[in-house]
Parts: sequence; structure tokens; C-alpha cells
Amino acid sequence: MSSISFIGLGGMAHAIAARAVTGGHSIELIGRDPAKAKGLAAELGVGATVGTFGTVPAGDIVVLAVPYASAVPVVTQYGDALAGKVIIDISNTFNADATALVVPDGTSGAQEIAKAAPASAHVVKAFNTVFGHVLVQDRPLDVFFAGDDPQAKASVSAFIESLGLRPLDVGDLEMARWLEGVGPLLMGLARNGAGTFDVALSVDFPG
Amino acid sequence: MSSISFIGLGGMAHAIAARAVTGGHSIELIGRDPAKAKGLAAELGVGATVGTFGTVPAGDIVVLAVPYASAVPVVTQYGDALAGKVIIDISNTFNADATALVVPDGTSGAQEIAKAAPASAHVVKAFNTVFGHVLVQDRPLDVFFAGDDPQAKASVSAFIESLGLRPLDVGDLEMARWLEGVGPLLMGLARNGAGTFDVALSVDFPG
Repeated sequence: MSSISFIGLGGMAHAIAARAVTGGHSIELIGRDPAKAKGLAAELGVGATVGTFGTVPAGDIVVLAVPYASAVPVVTQYGDALAGKVIIDISNTFNADATALVVPDGTSGAQEIAKAAPASAHVVKAFNTVFGHVLVQDRPLDVFFAGDDPQAKASVSAFIESLGLRPLDVGDLEMARWLEGVGPLLMGLARNGAGTFDVALSVDFPG
Repeated sequence: MSSISFIGLGGMAHAIAARAVTGGHSIELIGRDPAKAKGLAAELGVGATVGTFGTVPAGDIVVLAVPYASAVPVVTQYGDALAGKVIIDISNTFNADATALVVPDGTSGAQEIAKAAPASAHVVKAFNTVFGHVLVQDRPLDVFFAGDDPQAKASVSAFIESLGLRPLDVGDLEMARWLEGVGPLLMGLARNGAGTFDVALSVDFPG
């Protein structure tokens, strides 16, 4: 229906983009390696095009699908090319052994990305609580999101729904801290309580 | 089966104790107000007794069911009376508007309680991710827990299972930070995405 841009060509970009193509969106794939972007576009088929890294993305929604260590540098490099965009930050910010976050208390990866983005852009945190390899499985999944701008959140919520997933609003962007805290929790659960990385978090409440 | 002591007589103590009685445990209820403890014991019926605040609890497992603001002072006051006990910390540590934690980064309520407890006691974080009023509903519920001592964790896991709940180990006690981070997340979800406080977090993975 609408055009969605992806910056980053890893497993999460692949998983979300594949669902987006199925959901009828046109997809723009952007990476520093145009050959890799072309390869992924060919794999995804109809409706997938390749964009140029650093220039204005085609989509109103831009999925920032790079590791957190690259996220702020990439957004800084894009600068005004991201003006007015809805940026979905999907990053996890946990450390190497997945016990702590690399971003200091009182902020979050999403908030740091928002500080680096143009004032007219809106950052929404989403998808970091879903493993990419689970996203490609045929299971009912909940996608938690947080953000400050109601219109941007509504558009991300509709996008999540169009992927056949259930969007769950947890509040303002400051809540991204606790969404990022789910990262170590899921990793710990996979290593201990679940014993499998096919773990997914869901929410139950009377309709 | 075994004897479980509760320090604190609020909604969470009530909810867990009621399930414990159903599960066949004998229950010791301890509060600063003996009359209140007696009233709760009468309500819970068979197998519920009243203990004396500040003296050695009867149970090998002690559910510390007081608000976090009281938890460290209470454990300090108990001192050696908690020697050798398995202490279940069920506290939530979020602030008044449930957006941040009152315990600084790099630690958690559970770890602060462990510091205040005798060296021979073992703190296990559990139950803070389940609302008390949900615990009394007839729903399948997941209970996440974290701790450092394998034997203490095994006994808490068995206790959770005896309540008809599913225990899910998320790792060492340092993971309590992220279990406590689920508090603000559930509160935010209740206010936004779910629109109800009957929300419960669960985990899905191939058996």
C-alpha cells in the first residue's frame, strides 16, 4: 500500500521486509553495499527496489535496521535527508553477554537516535522484542512499540498490523528503555527457562 | 507440602498465599499488625498460621511481600533471623508514574535486598511481573524468576509450579534489573496498548 524504506540489509531487515512485501507494501532497500541490496531486492521480488545510501529515502516510514553501534552514526550521516520521516528504531542495546545495556540509565537507544535525527523526524521504537528468526516463522506475534508523536505511532501501528502482527503501544519514547531491557530478558530466558531461541513474548488480556 | 512464610499482608501476599493453600502448603503470615495477620489467616483457612514479626520465620521459603520502600529496612531489621532462608523478592521498583526505576542502574531491588540479607540467605526475584489481581484470576500465567543460587532457584521453581503457574528462569540475580523493568512496561501497556490492567505477559516457545 505504502512505501517503506529499510536502511540496513541484515536478518531483521530481511524478516520485516519479507512480511511487508506479503502485506502489499513497496519496499526500498538501502545499504552501503548496493550489490547486497540488489541481491536482497531480487530475493524479495515484486515491489522491492534499491535506494542510495545517504540520500532521501522513498518511504515515509524508514526502518533503521542497523546494529545499535551504527545507528546514531548512520542517522547523523543522513542528517536532513531524514527530515519529516517516521524512523522505526528496531535496535537492541544489550552488551556482549546480554546482561546489561550499553546505553546509560535515564535514556535509551531510541532516545539517542531521536537526538541525532532532524527535529521534524519522529522516532518510534518497535520490533526489538521479536527475534528476526521468529518473525519469519508462522506464529502469532506481539510487537511492542513506544514513541512520542501520536501520528507517527498510529502509522507504525498500522504498519505492524499490515504485517499480520499485533501492535501493542507501551507509551512514550522514554518507555524504550524498558523495551530495550526486554532484550537481555529474552536472551536470558532462551539460555535458561526456555532453552531455545525460538522464544516469543506475548501479552494476554481480556479483549 | 512445605511451609511458606509471608512477610507482608497486602494484595500480593494474599494472592500468592491463597494459591499456596490450594497447592497444599502450610502458610505462615507475618505482619507488624498481628490482628491483620490473624484476619488474613482466618480468611485463608486450613493450614494458615500467624508468625511474629522480626523472629525466625517457620518456612524455608520466605516471601518478602512488602513494597520495595520497606523491603531493605525490613530485611535489615530481621538480620540473622533470615539466615539460611530462601527469600523471594516480589517487589516492583518503579517510580510514581511508572516510567523509571527508583534503584540505580547496575543494580536492582533484588540485589539491594540480597546485600541487606545474611550471607547464608539466598534471594530469588519472582512474581513482580504478575499483577496480584491477575494472579487470583483463573488464567494460565507465566512467572519469571532470577537468582544466583541453583538450589534456591530450584526450590522457588518447584514452589511456583505447585501454585499451578509456569516458572521461567531468566538467569542470575543481575537479571532482576530487567524483570523490574517489566513493571513500567506492563503499566504502560495497561494504560496504552491493552487499555486494561488485566494484562499478563506470557512466553511462547516450541515445547
